[in-house]
Amino acid sequence: MMRRPTIADVAKLAGVSRSAVSFALNDRPGLAKETKARILAAAEELGWQPSRPARALSLGRAGALGLVVTREPDLLGVDPFYPAFLAGIETVLAEQGDGLVLHVSSPERERSLYERLAADRRVDGVLLTDLRIDDPRPALTASLGLPTVVVGRPEWSGGHCAVELDDEPAYVEAVRALAKAGHRRIAHVEGPPEFRHAQRRRQAWERALAELGLPPGPLRPGGFTAEGGARATRELLALAEPPTAIVYGNDLSATAGLAAAQQLGVSVPDQLSVVGYDDTPLAQFVHPPLASARADAQGWGAAAARALLTVIEHGSAPDVRLPPAAFVPRASVGPVAAGSPGH
Amino acid sequence: MMRRPTIADVAKLAGVSRSAVSFALNDRPGLAKETKARILAAAEELGWQPSRPARALSLGRAGALGLVVTREPDLLGVDPFYPAFLAGIETVLAEQGDGLVLHVSSPERERSLYERLAADRRVDGVLLTDLRIDDPRPALTASLGLPTVVVGRPEWSGGHCAVELDDEPAYVEAVRALAKAGHRRIAHVEGPPEFRHAQRRRQAWERALAELGLPPGPLRPGGFTAEGGARATRELLALAEPPTAIVYGNDLSATAGLAAAQQLGVSVPDQLSVVGYDDTPLAQFVHPPLASARADAQGWGAAAARALLTVIEHGSAPDVRLPPAAFVPRASVGPVAAGSPGH
Repeated sequence: MMRRPTIADVAKLAGVSRSAVSFALNDRPGLAKETKARILAAAEELGWQPSRPARALSLGRAGALGLVVTREPDLLGVDPFYPAFLAGIETVLAEQGDGLVLHVSSPERERSLYERLAADRRVDGVLLTDLRIDDPRPALTASLGLPTVVVGRPEWSGGHCAVELDDEPAYVEAVRALAKAGHRRIAHVEGPPEFRHAQRRRQAWERALAELGLPPGPLRPGGFTAEGGARATRELLALAEPPTAIVYGNDLSATAGLAAAQQLGVSVPDQLSVVGYDDTPLAQFVHPPLASARADAQGWGAAAARALLTVIEHGSAPDVRLPPAAFVPRASVGPVAAGSPGH
Repeated sequence: MMRRPTIADVAKLAGVSRSAVSFALNDRPGLAKETKARILAAAEELGWQPSRPARALSLGRAGALGLVVTREPDLLGVDPFYPAFLAGIETVLAEQGDGLVLHVSSPERERSLYERLAADRRVDGVLLTDLRIDDPRPALTASLGLPTVVVGRPEWSGGHCAVELDDEPAYVEAVRALAKAGHRRIAHVEGPPEFRHAQRRRQAWERALAELGLPPGPLRPGGFTAEGGARATRELLALAEPPTAIVYGNDLSATAGLAAAQQLGVSVPDQLSVVGYDDTPLAQFVHPPLASARADAQGWGAAAARALLTVIEHGSAPDVRLPPAAFVPRASVGPVAAGSPGH
């Protein structure tokens, strides 16, 4: 027999069902002792081996990619990026029967998780997301010999392959649209400053203001959270000269900011224009519908998975640049009102 | 040497770094040929084996649990349940070094995914979530000999261990609170009717109305989505006798429904009371803050993972009943206005 024997072959030789073979080979209860013995004898006769561990031993392939997400579960739970990104990875892995090993980690456990993934050969490579300032992970996975793809800009990748979807153009577009509508005091509520992408969004806002000759706008931390977005908005609206427009780090903080303004009696967009980022499914169904930026997280996951499979196979892969995020104007953005202090 | 040799032992014997050992054992480029040969000789001398595949071959353990989520990526992306649930699973797996193999599947691929997980011994057992009416999965995983825990009610489990967190009490409480506030026309916007939990939420609403002696309220499909919640709300408010309160299948449809009412000039809660389910991080930061129901998804994930590890170890585990979800009243619920047609 040239091909590798399958469970079906074992079942045929032992004269039992495939599920009985599965029970016997996995040493699970529920089979008569002699049936189990007959199955094991047939498996031995055919030289049957469990295919995944066998492949891992003979080819050095685990047949799985790894993703360690280091975020608070709460922050993860409201970010539509990851589920769409995971779905994109899956579309690629499904083609070749590989799996995804996912960990949700605290910062403290992160390092040991990567070490274990490498030592146990549980995955063939890893995707790094949410790159941070001075992120230790690119160097760590390199030292572990773990094939790696960085989900973000090439200059964050520490020499690994990078798969980028740029968020900067959407922020520049948003600030330009607001300036065109007459806004001069445009604030930003930024995401966690340790994240590279949050930092990049803030810098895009700063640069766009400078390019338009507008004064630097007020900045508040929002942490990508609803609570942070609401708090930052209340602080901004309490300023002696409040902004007439706020660009947020993501939709979650923008949606909460919109509600916080309304609760203070500030009308959106008449007295305040609001822009998010992510174009979450909810964005167009809040009141008023939320201007945002659309990024193809699913396509990003697929591209990152494809790049990582190439790195695993060939040792390296070219960087990938996906189409950047695009500003999506909606009714939460309007012209500066005649009576506004910002007019 | 009694204990299993580690990469550190190999590194010591070969006089190289641990990462060099990792490179050599994983057959990755970047090492001098003679260094690699020395490392492989040291590994052979010590009898080093990659621990994960070795364990899988010798003990029949893959060291991983499996979860196949059969949902549209869009629906997954906005549901805070899964990330919190995954984080809960992780807290348990982290204790013993196991991993989670996650698949996001279409209904068509679902069956073959479970078959492959079983055939490849890629996981030691699976968690079944989003149980459906006539769900084929409990019987399928039983026939595959895959240890299984059903995340839901025991009567859905097909004989597997069930880990339940009941959503019914929160719906009954919500309807009672609305009735106490004077509401008599209380509508429901239900989730995908193929989901057991969506069906159970609808039945809880029906039963609570009946127990309170209230007429059966209008029902509309909402699909757990923002779009579905907005559409259902517009339909309900266009009725000859519109409801004065709407209880939704989840927060996403409720948040969109709230905005849809506001867009029609219907004031919440003065003219319409609104209740969601999930208590998403955004719920208390919309305007007005959304009454909802709180369920401990992270605790649910942890309990389900613990139960599955027990099933894997001992062949079975007792069903687990977690504290049920609790109604969280907020400003989106108010008394029926004097001028309301429902008064």
